[in-house]
Amino acid sequence: MIEYRNVRVALLGGGTVGAQVARLLLEHKEEFASRVGASLELTGIAVRNLDAARSADLPKELFTTDAESLILGADIVIEVMGGLEPARSYILQAINSGADVVTANKALLATHGTELFEAAERVGAQLYFEAAVAGAIPIIRPLRESLAGDRVKRIMGIVNGTTNYILDKMDTEGASFDDALAVATELGYAEADPTADVDAFDAAQKASILASLAFHTTIPLESVHREGIRAISGKTVELAKKAGYVVKLLAVCERLTDPATGEEGVSARVYPALISREHPLAAVHKANNAVFVEAEAAGSLMFYGAGAGGPETASAVLGDLVSAARRHVIGGPGLGASTHANLPVLPISAITTRYHVTLLVFDRPGVLASVAEEFAKHGVSVELVEQGTFGSEAVSGEAAPTATLVIGTHAALESDLAATVSALAQLDAVSSVVSVLRVEGA
Amino acid sequence: MIEYRNVRVALLGGGTVGAQVARLLLEHKEEFASRVGASLELTGIAVRNLDAARSADLPKELFTTDAESLILGADIVIEVMGGLEPARSYILQAINSGADVVTANKALLATHGTELFEAAERVGAQLYFEAAVAGAIPIIRPLRESLAGDRVKRIMGIVNGTTNYILDKMDTEGASFDDALAVATELGYAEADPTADVDAFDAAQKASILASLAFHTTIPLESVHREGIRAISGKTVELAKKAGYVVKLLAVCERLTDPATGEEGVSARVYPALISREHPLAAVHKANNAVFVEAEAAGSLMFYGAGAGGPETASAVLGDLVSAARRHVIGGPGLGASTHANLPVLPISAITTRYHVTLLVFDRPGVLASVAEEFAKHGVSVELVEQGTFGSEAVSGEAAPTATLVIGTHAALESDLAATVSALAQLDAVSSVVSVLRVEGA
Repeated sequence: MIEYRNVRVALLGGGTVGAQVARLLLEHKEEFASRVGASLELTGIAVRNLDAARSADLPKELFTTDAESLILGADIVIEVMGGLEPARSYILQAINSGADVVTANKALLATHGTELFEAAERVGAQLYFEAAVAGAIPIIRPLRESLAGDRVKRIMGIVNGTTNYILDKMDTEGASFDDALAVATELGYAEADPTADVDAFDAAQKASILASLAFHTTIPLESVHREGIRAISGKTVELAKKAGYVVKLLAVCERLTDPATGEEGVSARVYPALISREHPLAAVHKANNAVFVEAEAAGSLMFYGAGAGGPETASAVLGDLVSAARRHVIGGPGLGASTHANLPVLPISAITTRYHVTLLVFDRPGVLASVAEEFAKHGVSVELVEQGTFGSEAVSGEAAPTATLVIGTHAALESDLAATVSALAQLDAVSSVVSVLRVEGA
Repeated sequence: MIEYRNVRVALLGGGTVGAQVARLLLEHKEEFASRVGASLELTGIAVRNLDAARSADLPKELFTTDAESLILGADIVIEVMGGLEPARSYILQAINSGADVVTANKALLATHGTELFEAAERVGAQLYFEAAVAGAIPIIRPLRESLAGDRVKRIMGIVNGTTNYILDKMDTEGASFDDALAVATELGYAEADPTADVDAFDAAQKASILASLAFHTTIPLESVHREGIRAISGKTVELAKKAGYVVKLLAVCERLTDPATGEEGVSARVYPALISREHPLAAVHKANNAVFVEAEAAGSLMFYGAGAGGPETASAVLGDLVSAARRHVIGGPGLGASTHANLPVLPISAITTRYHVTLLVFDRPGVLASVAEEFAKHGVSVELVEQGTFGSEAVSGEAAPTATLVIGTHAALESDLAATVSALAQLDAVSSVVSVLRVEGA
């Protein structure tokens, strides 16, 4: 048997994920060696502060603050430090020194992915990033490889565990947004500053990565339409529940026809949406993640599991590491970034979906007629109308008594719906537009 | 840009899947070329009978009965003809002439997999088989690659659409086994001879493939314990439903400790089992498939989708084809068969699980005590006892009135449970053992 020299692995970052990766690499050394066909030698763990690292249950001599020397001597660099810099510079250095890179850094990929992939392609290096989206759930590899012979039509993903935890708690226990967020923070699901999760920055990064892979098109983070869940009240969730829906923060990536040109384009957006309680995504509870993929030939697929967490992310990182190491031992490149399709990325106004518009209206004759007229005028077809009592207490100071009107539409163009909503807000009969929610997964 | 010559693709089999693969290859020629980096040239479709092929909506000149010449000129051979021979010989010929092979043939892999993988390894050829298990659901690739850095503890899969359709119909509509089978046959889910599905031969083949990949160990088909669903009556399904369970035909593959030696071993088995209605697998309806994977670091993952069907299988075949073609263009081997762990394969007697034993007993004093004593004597701990009326009509000719007793156990060793059941069958108080069902997914 041919004996290969060790594959030298440098680890950047000694936090929860980094420590877990290091521990598994050391503990299962022989198992990794037999899977790869050569020993994986952890050459060091680069950290910012040696003091912090000392508490870890790992050989002290592995830790270093000199990331650059560590990278220089590595065949494979694992980046689990997070943040944009110095992660970006380190990865570029690794690529340019001929190493393959495994990263879990979704923010970096969504922001500087094009630069990193181009650098990798120039030198024939590989960039692996299964851990960047949906933790240990294998979704990157299926999109890059398993579905490479199919055409993905649509992806709907619950890709942020924190917001799913919050929305699930609101749905199952009737909690308010603030209370659910407080519990999520207490349990460590949400950060002290929950902006990245709650305002859907994190989900938008993942949508950008998923859409780019699925449609073989660069989807810049800025072109991902983003709405967070702060505006979702307990009442909204309750009304949705009564109507047979659940509110989920969805990353939706789809192929669609540009209404302006008639050409094929793609859309990537993140927003809280209504989804039927019969849909498999409705059964994704707590902080779990799931990605629902519709492909031309494969039909509907769903990938489900724990979204994040140290061990889960470490599992994804190590899976990538084995791929990278096997490539290193046996030779031959893996898959590069694939942006050959280069489809136009369409704005949110170009999408077509169903909507639930909740209005607070003054309770007097002719209201429904004037509301219905606005929908008709803008070419939006109404599917159902329901009158509720939601919100009446909120405007008890109003001159006239108010009532809630929920209008469900058939599939309509977002720009038409937006024009309808603007017009509705101007109507004398309408006190306020309470919410506009998209309905997905019909 | 470097221009590569075409990749020559030979297709063996012109049935539903073959025709679909050919059609997609021809229709999306440019898209495949840009994904692979070279044109995929379909050089021919080998069929047994040219007459049958003539009806297909494909260029007539592609069809040939001379499979061997076709294989000789191919870079990649796709085998979707099914059956053991001549599929096995053709694949060996392809491998030995230096081609990579994509196959959807689970029966062949489960029966002759070791021979094929060894042949491929000898010449450095690759064998791709995503389509062999669970249609378009990417499960082979995640097991081979994504989880390569993790340790799979357990797999539970609904891997046969026909039996899931039957059991789901029994559960949701209260149909009898015979009626559900008749509908499945009418709708084309079941073959005229349903043995392969109903007696779990098909599921056992898939269990053998999944277990081999998950545990890096050759699991011969003969060592997969197999029980079909013919014995599952409407009453059994109804009783299960009342107790909060659903009956599913499960392929279970797990690592476990050999009770005889204390060493680590693996088990692969297929049987109808009770699963809690709260478990994600309980929500897999109709002919869908799903594979639930528990790994040390990744936690619980589930892969869900349509199990079989022409387009779904074609999607999986084409995904593999793109991988194979990229490897052909760019060079470098992919992953070989991985059987380095070579763990002992343990018999069904070595497994530990929970059980529901349903007995028909004579309704007289002391029955429960004598039944309970047998469990205790064999070291099987009882969790619950329920007295029902099920079956009383079936034995109306009996001397004494009868009653049904369902005994749920805590986790117990299968050999202990089997000894208990044998002893129970000998008791005067017991009229018959109605069923013994394992409970999975606790």
